[in-house]
Amino acid sequence: MMNAKLTIAVIGCGGVGGYYGTQLNRAGHEVHYLVRSDAAHVRKHGWYVQSKLGDYALAGRNVHAYESVEDMPQCDVVLLALKTTSNHLLDELLPKVLKQDGFVFVLQNGIGIEEQVAEVVGNDRVAGGLCFVCSVKRGPGHIEHQDYGWMTAGDYRADGEPAGVTERLRLIQEMFNGTDVPIELKEDLTQARWQKLIFNIPFNGLSVVLNADTYAMTHDLDVRELAWELMLEVGEATKAAVGREIPEAFMAEIMEKTTVMRPYFPSMKLDHDAGRMMEVEGIFGETARRAMAGGYRAEKIWTLYRQLKFLDRTNDD
Amino acid sequence: MMNAKLTIAVIGCGGVGGYYGTQLNRAGHEVHYLVRSDAAHVRKHGWYVQSKLGDYALAGRNVHAYESVEDMPQCDVVLLALKTTSNHLLDELLPKVLKQDGFVFVLQNGIGIEEQVAEVVGNDRVAGGLCFVCSVKRGPGHIEHQDYGWMTAGDYRADGEPAGVTERLRLIQEMFNGTDVPIELKEDLTQARWQKLIFNIPFNGLSVVLNADTYAMTHDLDVRELAWELMLEVGEATKAAVGREIPEAFMAEIMEKTTVMRPYFPSMKLDHDAGRMMEVEGIFGETARRAMAGGYRAEKIWTLYRQLKFLDRTNDD
Repeated sequence: MMNAKLTIAVIGCGGVGGYYGTQLNRAGHEVHYLVRSDAAHVRKHGWYVQSKLGDYALAGRNVHAYESVEDMPQCDVVLLALKTTSNHLLDELLPKVLKQDGFVFVLQNGIGIEEQVAEVVGNDRVAGGLCFVCSVKRGPGHIEHQDYGWMTAGDYRADGEPAGVTERLRLIQEMFNGTDVPIELKEDLTQARWQKLIFNIPFNGLSVVLNADTYAMTHDLDVRELAWELMLEVGEATKAAVGREIPEAFMAEIMEKTTVMRPYFPSMKLDHDAGRMMEVEGIFGETARRAMAGGYRAEKIWTLYRQLKFLDRTNDD
Repeated sequence: MMNAKLTIAVIGCGGVGGYYGTQLNRAGHEVHYLVRSDAAHVRKHGWYVQSKLGDYALAGRNVHAYESVEDMPQCDVVLLALKTTSNHLLDELLPKVLKQDGFVFVLQNGIGIEEQVAEVVGNDRVAGGLCFVCSVKRGPGHIEHQDYGWMTAGDYRADGEPAGVTERLRLIQEMFNGTDVPIELKEDLTQARWQKLIFNIPFNGLSVVLNADTYAMTHDLDVRELAWELMLEVGEATKAAVGREIPEAFMAEIMEKTTVMRPYFPSMKLDHDAGRMMEVEGIFGETARRAMAGGYRAEKIWTLYRQLKFLDRTNDD
């Protein structure tokens, strides 16, 4: 399929799905969006993406948007960008939109996500993408891309071992040709997944508990110190759970990038403020539990986990 | 001085100082209140105390209330019930209101408090009182006593060793005769102080971070578990810092009492909501630092400490 235009289904069109989906659409792929309640709006008005790399719009007449997977065609690639809190729906969603020789490219956050997808579609039809992007859905058909945007991708193996740079990864790289999305291929998806927690655990979690954006968190000495210690805990947890090393230099880089970027409320905070469930289990629960199974108690991560569970549960008032 | 009526200065008339001061006043002692901005109101209208043990009032004409220590007489006993965030004022406050042979009875919360007082008045003029009371200042001259009310008292020694049940402790016990305040004498103030943290660290801290009262905290499984783990950390911290054991049975008792009491926002939460500084250093900072000096890293307490420092610092918006 190299160089060919692909059919792509985007499942979940929030900030991440909306941004990457429209990027692929602009580059000439045939993209089918599952947007649920906003489908009629998007079919009529298309997408409007405010991007720091230049705003763009896709006219409604050229956009394929759906309320339900029942109406969608089966595609070569499924970009999975739902919140993981909806992953109990994967069973009914994925088979409908995935071609027999297609695969699911998982853009979700957290630990154990590819395993959930593989249970539905099979171990050999899953790859993982890690999105380093500040991007938010502002309203129906309206995406704001605030900062960054690069992605790393790794292929999935059921045993968690490095799959190397596969043919499928090269296809993914090819697919993003002509987009604004720099993509880096990783031999070891497990390493990449755990490394992604270096941002997500401190900054998603603390933004909710402290009601603070990335600027406030990185510019307060106590929160910065706590974020750093959480990063170190993620490092220990990763060692205990999957035997990978996360270099401190990577942690320092994430801290630095977060310090200088435009003030940003991470997605977990936006979810919480909008009354939606947070991805507490995928990001915090699985991490803490797998570390514990490996003999390491991540005390600060557990603390945040329990605080977030409470805030999630009481979020209806 | 046994059986004699005493002169008593109350420094800091919030929920604690207001409640215990008026209790002693009612029992016939001569009580002088430092109430700062509310002094004129209290001189005119006296005190009104809504208590679960029966409401009572003290008429203004019988109440000695002051804006400043300059106007106060020196007293036999100084009840120190300021927030510890004002302890930088002890230097100017205490000498003005303390008789040569009098002593300071410290009702504040936290670690290292008696040491601060002793630096001002001398090692032999300090005792500590631990207040197990839900009591709030509702407005000028208006105290609401919601629950509990007992107190334990211990005498201070500069080396932190048990002072035993001293003459001074018996005087304190005598002083509360005829009040609604059950008082229990402790041979070891250090033990009592650290044990008090078993309530204060989990429930003061989490109530602020989670915006939750004691009922919500004890009835949510995650917060209850986190509170329990914080109690265990206080136990380890106590061992490391001062070599005392806090029995798990005591922790269970505090958990149980907190579970069944009327829903209550601990004082730190009330301070925070009112825009006042929280006692983060005395309760969390000193505990975590002294434990660390003894070789124990109280990870969850550190986490809460840093969260509270941030919330304290950003509390003006």
